Amino acid sequence: MKNEVRPRGIRFTVPYRVIYGDTDKAGVVYYGAYLRLFEIGRTEFMRNVLNRPYRAMEEEGILFPVVEAYLRYKSSSTYDDLLEIETGIREISSYSITFSYRITRSGRLVVQGHTKHASTDRKGKLTKLSQGLIEALGRTVNQ
Amino acid sequence: MKNEVRPRGIRFTVPYRVIYGDTDKAGVVYYGAYLRLFEIGRTEFMRNVLNRPYRAMEEEGILFPVVEAYLRYKSSSTYDDLLEIETGIREISSYSITFSYRITRSGRLVVQGHTKHASTDRKGKLTKLSQGLIEALGRTVNQ
Amino acid sequence: MKNEVRPRGIRFTVPYRVIYGDTDKAGVVYYGAYLRLFEIGRTEFMRNVLNRPYRAMEEEGILFPVVEAYLRYKSSSTYDDLLEIETGIREISSYSITFSYRITRSGRLVVQGHTKHASTDRKGKLTKLSQGLIEALGRTVNQ
Amino acid sequence: MKNEVRPRGIRFTVPYRVIYGDTDKAGVVYYGAYLRLFEIGRTEFMRNVLNRPYRAMEEEGILFPVVEAYLRYKSSSTYDDLLEIETGIREISSYSITFSYRITRSGRLVVQGHTKHASTDRKGKLTKLSQGLIEALGRTVNQ
Repeated sequence: MKNEVRPRGIRFTVPYRVIYGDTDKAGVVYYGAYLRLFEIGRTEFMRNVLNRPYRAMEEEGILFPVVEAYLRYKSSSTYDDLLEIETGIREISSYSITFSYRITRSGRLVVQGHTKHASTDRKGKLTKLSQGLIEALGRTVNQ
Repeated sequence: MKNEVRPRGIRFTVPYRVIYGDTDKAGVVYYGAYLRLFEIGRTEFMRNVLNRPYRAMEEEGILFPVVEAYLRYKSSSTYDDLLEIETGIREISSYSITFSYRITRSGRLVVQGHTKHASTDRKGKLTKLSQGLIEALGRTVNQ
Repeated sequence: MKNEVRPRGIRFTVPYRVIYGDTDKAGVVYYGAYLRLFEIGRTEFMRNVLNRPYRAMEEEGILFPVVEAYLRYKSSSTYDDLLEIETGIREISSYSITFSYRITRSGRLVVQGHTKHASTDRKGKLTKLSQGLIEALGRTVNQ
Repeated sequence: MKNEVRPRGIRFTVPYRVIYGDTDKAGVVYYGAYLRLFEIGRTEFMRNVLNRPYRAMEEEGILFPVVEAYLRYKSSSTYDDLLEIETGIREISSYSITFSYRITRSGRLVVQGHTKHASTDRKGKLTKLSQGLIEALGRTVNQ
């Protein structure tokens, strides 16, 4: 896996403050909670970098259901930590987008990973990404 | 509040095993997680006592959105505890149902509370409970 | 219940963006998710108004486990809504604090409620609130 | 990736009923919720196949923090579905265990994946798996 490679291209970063509800009895953030943080990163990347809020795309009938998720846990984070969720595009194809994520605390890597999403219509049928979206995505990668 | 009064009528009990994902860094179940357990109790009460699975009622266009929730935390529970979720009906009106809950561990009270639900159609419009449902609910109370 | 009364005193407001992970199949925020939002409001109230981050108090051995929670659901909110979580103090006693919350969307009330917390030491023993904290809390109420 | 290969060895299966709190506004189970189901599967595998409840191992100071998680989403599941969580061992080394999972609904694959866990002591220091545990794990693989 190439996850260890530092991603290039335009990245967007959102701060996130860990709450009690994210932690578990080991005193650290629960392993499943990071998929929520990936979602926050992905949503804000779409809104702020692509200028296409996911809510607006949904209303047009363009959906990106997840087909794969990968997480590598490098160090732990705990209650009240201020994390940085960094999101970018790792791969684009005609029918899918792969986002990559790095979650850090004071510069230290906590979790990294990716999620791959198919492009479908409301009925779940695979649908080609529009040329406009592919170009917008491409501009974030080739920088 | 009359929550302290031991509820009467038909009660239905579901076991629940606490997972890491339910706990927080204080080593106990997160206070918000109990509303999930109330939902489990309510769903199984409807399926097993009323013989009306909520999924089937939804398909007929009968919804019960929550309008109020109350929880009283009496003692804590932790990872791997085997809890009992006990659910019953506390009150019925033409347009609402109030469920009451007691969550215990080895007979010791952990959380008790209630949730009140309006009866609506798919568009959220208040709709009278059917006579059949009121009777089924009534039978669980007057025992 | 006096929840309907508009609270007075110093209130602190935090914005919150609803994610997919907060919603359920009815298309709205899951009823249990609001207790996470109450926690966010409470934590930021302590940090910003009381100047006592909860994490710091915990490290000194001062804990505030929840003993009661109440939520009144007034209208629904959905994916990508930008909510405002408004938190204040409703009641103080020697051994407990009650926070009150109002969650709104564009000024419209979504959920209101309160949580009551006991004051304990690390072992869970009831412990009087310090005079300094009572005064800091009092200043937020009597404005 | 070899995830597509049907796993061999002893597998343990737990039923799981999907609740509203697991779903999102797309009407299906939220992608992050499956890591909770993996945890349920893993816990019951340890209790029932290895005869080593994780809670008991923790009390002896043996911890298995997650270092990697992978999920492949094959089809969706929705409210009130009765899922089957099937868990087994995919790989064992001196310092780690990899669990594999298949979540199905009426025999249809919903999600499959794995989680890799390091073996550590209470302070997070890598610690060799005991010979007894390696043998118990090995018996579940070589069948």
